[in-house]
Amino acid sequence: MASVIALDAMGSDRAPKPEIEGAIQAARHYGVRVVLVGRESEIRAELDRHPASASLPLEILHADQVITMKDRAAQAVRAKRHSSMRVGLRLVHDALAAGFVTAGNTGAAMATAKMVLGALPGVDRPALAAVFPTALSTAAILLDVGANVDCKPENLEQFAVMGEIYSRSIFGLRRPRVGLLSIGEEEGKGNEQTRQAFRLLKTLPLNFIGNVEGRDLYNGQVDVIVADGFVGNVALKTSEGVATLVRNILKESLRSTITRQVGYWLSRSAFADFKKRLDYSEYGGAPLLGLKGVCIIGHGSSNANAIKNAIRVAAEFSERNINTKIEKELRALRPHAVALT
Amino acid sequence: MASVIALDAMGSDRAPKPEIEGAIQAARHYGVRVVLVGRESEIRAELDRHPASASLPLEILHADQVITMKDRAAQAVRAKRHSSMRVGLRLVHDALAAGFVTAGNTGAAMATAKMVLGALPGVDRPALAAVFPTALSTAAILLDVGANVDCKPENLEQFAVMGEIYSRSIFGLRRPRVGLLSIGEEEGKGNEQTRQAFRLLKTLPLNFIGNVEGRDLYNGQVDVIVADGFVGNVALKTSEGVATLVRNILKESLRSTITRQVGYWLSRSAFADFKKRLDYSEYGGAPLLGLKGVCIIGHGSSNANAIKNAIRVAAEFSERNINTKIEKELRALRPHAVALT
Repeated sequence: MASVIALDAMGSDRAPKPEIEGAIQAARHYGVRVVLVGRESEIRAELDRHPASASLPLEILHADQVITMKDRAAQAVRAKRHSSMRVGLRLVHDALAAGFVTAGNTGAAMATAKMVLGALPGVDRPALAAVFPTALSTAAILLDVGANVDCKPENLEQFAVMGEIYSRSIFGLRRPRVGLLSIGEEEGKGNEQTRQAFRLLKTLPLNFIGNVEGRDLYNGQVDVIVADGFVGNVALKTSEGVATLVRNILKESLRSTITRQVGYWLSRSAFADFKKRLDYSEYGGAPLLGLKGVCIIGHGSSNANAIKNAIRVAAEFSERNINTKIEKELRALRPHAVALT
Repeated sequence: MASVIALDAMGSDRAPKPEIEGAIQAARHYGVRVVLVGRESEIRAELDRHPASASLPLEILHADQVITMKDRAAQAVRAKRHSSMRVGLRLVHDALAAGFVTAGNTGAAMATAKMVLGALPGVDRPALAAVFPTALSTAAILLDVGANVDCKPENLEQFAVMGEIYSRSIFGLRRPRVGLLSIGEEEGKGNEQTRQAFRLLKTLPLNFIGNVEGRDLYNGQVDVIVADGFVGNVALKTSEGVATLVRNILKESLRSTITRQVGYWLSRSAFADFKKRLDYSEYGGAPLLGLKGVCIIGHGSSNANAIKNAIRVAAEFSERNINTKIEKELRALRPHAVALT
């Protein structure tokens, strides 16, 4: 790899520490050149704590404004024209970087990326995809998870095409199984939106396995799950809620007696395993699909490993020409529609 | 209690065993009279295994057809006119029973109940409510979870009123917190449907706390969660998926070495605790709200305890006049609309 990736150094909850460490790891392990975008003095102070980084391909690009988690998306985009997000995405727009990574405010990142990069020809609405582990240790993706509500069936069709290409290109699946998130498996089940989308999806030249339900998200039986952004977001956040509840109940319960504490102590490595299996940081963040450029959004709580993997994914996204494939496959799908634009 | 409850003796996956045992427990502990509806010979054979039941207020009403989990709802309603579901619900319709309980096919139960009982005045679409435990050991309810898709904002408004009354009447909450399931907490967040519903809900004379997200379902911060049936169903089934994944990962991991097995053995009571906290059978099944009558639907995997609790809830539902309250509060809400019907 020799891609240049622009990294929002000010994005995560504990920025710039995880960003700098993740950038150092990515530069060292993957040979990616990383442009650290943000407040130069803060970035330099953190870099100075890692003397070995001096020999790595890291650069700093100063941007004096920072979009915080509390900023409203639309307002941040308008008011903070020199934010690290906007400056970083400009590098991608101007072809000075192959991709952009941020662990900052998701709403602001989506809005800024759409404005700065614009949508690919044939894409009506870019989608945010969530990547997560399944029972079979494969990675599945769910899209959209919040960028688009009240989708038309055609939007869901485009999500299917984009998600399938991503799954093939990044996870190396030869023929990913694509499912439509609905309630009930038969074709007629669901709401008006999914029934219409089902009819479109079954004509696509991909491995469409029909409707899937919420309980299928994590069972490894489907690789790409297509949903309206409202529904996808509810599914994702409900999952977080259940995981938190289970963790808290177990933790509390295992502390309540000495015997159990001993039991917990002996079985703690199993819990570490478990945590690792559920560790989203291995999967490199959520890609925004359908933009003229590469933008990967990490969780605000990202650690160095998550940043490293997001940088790797951004580089792979660019090198594997995912956007060219999306444009081409959408054009093949609706040749006349695209010809008219 | 001296209510008469009609019980579908043929509903659950292992019917009629859990039904008979649950009915015996309910009759013994709560003094409820239970009419066991289904194939008389099978019911009697099971009853004969419990000689002490002879002195309890249990009756048998023969119905020779059984709706299975594989039957399609609409078809089962048409084709099986002598099913235990339909015969049991007729008892409620004819005021011979105060309520009906089934652990059978949910779709068929909803369709049959709507047809046999009909909707209360002022209710456009009856709703199925799911009841579950939260982090604070309180019970929360989510409605609708699958009876109605493509809801109008007015449907969601009615769900809020019905769910709030149920929470007050059955769980004894004085002023339940009512939330609208959406994506993002601010009023403007969500889709067209939830934005319109938000405007209706905030004018209601109940404790509306605004939008809640998927991660709030289980955190004990909201008691009644209102959603379109498509969204509620996805949230519920996604929760099942996460719980299954977590359980399987832990189980597998804790078996993999001797030390961990010892650890697991010592901490197993904590897991039993955990299972109990998540045991839906304590909460007495899912009520169908908005019907002219009482209908409680249990899970197909219901055990005797779940059946017992569902019978208790059906009796309480009737004794606490929930349907009268729903009718009255909906009339107060839209006096003109109801006056016209």
